[in-house]
Amino acid sequence: MEHIAFIGTGIMGHPMARNLLRAGYRVHIYTRTPDKARDLVSEGALLAETLGAAVSEATVVITMLPDIPDVRAVYFGVPGMEGVLTLCRPATLLIDMSTVSPQFARDLAEAAVERGCFSLDAPVSGGQEAAERGALSIMVGGPIGAFERAQSLFNVIGSRVVWIGDAGAGQVAKACNQVVVAINIAGVAEALKLAEAQGVDSTRVQEALMGGYAHSRVLEVHGKRMIRRDFKPGFRMRLHLKDLSIVTDIRNVSLPVTSLVKAIVADRVAHGLGDWDHAALFIDNNGEDYGRKRQPEC
Amino acid sequence: MEHIAFIGTGIMGHPMARNLLRAGYRVHIYTRTPDKARDLVSEGALLAETLGAAVSEATVVITMLPDIPDVRAVYFGVPGMEGVLTLCRPATLLIDMSTVSPQFARDLAEAAVERGCFSLDAPVSGGQEAAERGALSIMVGGPIGAFERAQSLFNVIGSRVVWIGDAGAGQVAKACNQVVVAINIAGVAEALKLAEAQGVDSTRVQEALMGGYAHSRVLEVHGKRMIRRDFKPGFRMRLHLKDLSIVTDIRNVSLPVTSLVKAIVADRVAHGLGDWDHAALFIDNNGEDYGRKRQPEC
Repeated sequence: MEHIAFIGTGIMGHPMARNLLRAGYRVHIYTRTPDKARDLVSEGALLAETLGAAVSEATVVITMLPDIPDVRAVYFGVPGMEGVLTLCRPATLLIDMSTVSPQFARDLAEAAVERGCFSLDAPVSGGQEAAERGALSIMVGGPIGAFERAQSLFNVIGSRVVWIGDAGAGQVAKACNQVVVAINIAGVAEALKLAEAQGVDSTRVQEALMGGYAHSRVLEVHGKRMIRRDFKPGFRMRLHLKDLSIVTDIRNVSLPVTSLVKAIVADRVAHGLGDWDHAALFIDNNGEDYGRKRQPEC
Repeated sequence: MEHIAFIGTGIMGHPMARNLLRAGYRVHIYTRTPDKARDLVSEGALLAETLGAAVSEATVVITMLPDIPDVRAVYFGVPGMEGVLTLCRPATLLIDMSTVSPQFARDLAEAAVERGCFSLDAPVSGGQEAAERGALSIMVGGPIGAFERAQSLFNVIGSRVVWIGDAGAGQVAKACNQVVVAINIAGVAEALKLAEAQGVDSTRVQEALMGGYAHSRVLEVHGKRMIRRDFKPGFRMRLHLKDLSIVTDIRNVSLPVTSLVKAIVADRVAHGLGDWDHAALFIDNNGEDYGRKRQPEC
């Protein structure tokens, strides 16, 4: 059985690591905030004092970090700390499950090969609740052999695991996912705004629309949040902005609707809604109409 | 049992009228192209020679017409032809199932009241295939009493029948439906374009995305059409443009994403794709890349 080093036990990584522990994997954790990993330790996780201590014992390294700079620091190192690529043993399988750019994923894959290691980009969709249930959707890029080696591990974390293609392809799929979700949220927001502006009961509209081609998970989940003015995250607006920035940085493809929706999300973040759920795209202003009680705790 | 006059036996109206016949309703038809109604006559429909002959016998008038000018002509008349509002008996229930503006629906409702009649706006979603199966989604605006009177008839035509609110509210819901569908199609189109531009298998991406928050009927149905370059209608681009124009004509609500998507749809129609399925929003040009065999017969 693989011997795992897990780096990044935040909102998503924490339940993922716990599910691996419960499936019987030996999991080393390295974190800058050991307090938050205490319950993982009580379930058998081994808390490493340094990144090197976590990684040097591992056959598989999993990272689940917020953004490209974090992932870069962990793999390539920073002044004063060597990175995973230097610290790991040859033939280690490196799995980055963070959401980063396809190009960064390809660069990391190349560096892994030079080091005699294997790597996969394996971003997820489904959020904290799916992470807790081990029901994430996992989109995987990298060599098919590495994917097969990781599959039993992925099946612990996710319920839909799809190999998309070569290095970076998992991140391309995640970028596509974020495009569809963001644009659909914008569409549902405009439709419900239209209903309310016309004095029509948006609850009935949402119910009627669920019966036809307008049916979607976003209409169901985020539509209800908009109707209830419940914008507690969920997935934070500022993270969706980061993901959409990854998309619009990709060259040689014209994505006008994505660009407009990204601009609207950026506007909401600039108005102080960055820590609200991305369903708050529904709100036209800084959220003050919605009162303290409806604001998320953040 | 109600005695129906059905005006507008086109792609949608034809199967709707047939389902009413099969449910045992007496159905009078008035049409400018009697040849196309021949099979309805063979199933028991009564072909009227004039609008007056169809309407004067009816307790319920149903209209299913392409656009506002057609609906206006049938209800309010044109030089040389009196309209339904003049021809019908008092207390007739007038049901317009066409997609028109909420304001037109309210105007028609007011005229119906003045004439001592009842009226409902009851646009549908689901397309020809749902019309054939009697499985349309029906969004109804108008007096609740009129809705209750029509309910058994609606249940023959549709599988999800929702009373939304007062006169015009059904058309507001339909406008919301078209906003969500059009924007979601645009989102799926940009996501799949992104995948292809990055050299990634769009079939695998679509499969992976169906497992998470990107899940939608549009991703399933229209996503597949885009991947296969199958743009035979379905729902024609130019009709979707008409419906989006109804939406953007509504005042006092800001719908930037709807406006952009409408502009993109208008561009495709201007490039000769008006009779292609609205999934052809995926195409950046006039469709010539896709070859004769992939073009719809139109």
